[in-house]
Amino acid sequence: MSAESRGLPLAVEAAAVPPRTKPSNYPEPFFSRMLKREKRALGDQFGLKNFGVNLTRLWPGGESALLHRHSKQDEFVYILEGRPTLITDAGEIELAPGMCAGFPAAGVAHHLVNRTDRDVVYLEVGDRTPGDTGTYPADDLEARLGADGRWLFTHKDGTSY
Amino acid sequence: MSAESRGLPLAVEAAAVPPRTKPSNYPEPFFSRMLKREKRALGDQFGLKNFGVNLTRLWPGGESALLHRHSKQDEFVYILEGRPTLITDAGEIELAPGMCAGFPAAGVAHHLVNRTDRDVVYLEVGDRTPGDTGTYPADDLEARLGADGRWLFTHKDGTSY
Repeated sequence: MSAESRGLPLAVEAAAVPPRTKPSNYPEPFFSRMLKREKRALGDQFGLKNFGVNLTRLWPGGESALLHRHSKQDEFVYILEGRPTLITDAGEIELAPGMCAGFPAAGVAHHLVNRTDRDVVYLEVGDRTPGDTGTYPADDLEARLGADGRWLFTHKDGTSY
Repeated sequence: MSAESRGLPLAVEAAAVPPRTKPSNYPEPFFSRMLKREKRALGDQFGLKNFGVNLTRLWPGGESALLHRHSKQDEFVYILEGRPTLITDAGEIELAPGMCAGFPAAGVAHHLVNRTDRDVVYLEVGDRTPGDTGTYPADDLEARLGADGRWLFTHKDGTSY
């Protein structure tokens, strides 16, 4: 089975991959907080299923996600450009190009925030272990990964948005 | 549960992570082909279990691995420095910084080779789906991932090295 026969490229220029058209899956008021973020789904270009890799850009004032942790999925980021602040519920640290951070399942809650006046660009990796849930310590939100691979978001009391 | 309470850093400088002490798990004569390769296990620094992320350097003449494919695990590379040649059983292509390539399970066999006189540095991601096997179209080698997470290498007729 060749890559060409399945219409897959051997390699791509990451910055040339079109950005995701839907800025976020969050319901409002969280959706609007993600409008200074742009994601290019690199792994999907090659038909990867077990994990995703995005090239993500945060404009000044942008954030990677809400402060969150996953129950089963691991995450990893590697900074390519700019100086985002990694905010966690165990402290915060300014990152720089060449730095990386990893977030094991059920570990500290985390997100990246661009407090600078220059863009931040990073690679993010996350696996796709089924049955995952997202916990958001700072916001009235919970997420559950459905059997169809889509996230279902509710208030913390279980009511829908 | 905080990162500090488990002795895990919030973030690290990738290039400052000590390289893996064992250059390769391959038996000879393949082991010696991997001596121009250096891997820093970034994901392990943070206790990630579902996938690994390495910062890998190939000196001139080095190669990422033998030409191979996985049966169940996906792989991904993002080039940070230098110009490796991606060799697959569906063709080859020269890569450059900012380019990436992904290798879905049971896809094309692949490896990176540094045919230049300058170092190549890249990030590589691979998941840890159990029951994986490695197939090596160009070499008399087969690999099977044991229940203990270690690779068992044999000749293609099943005899041991």
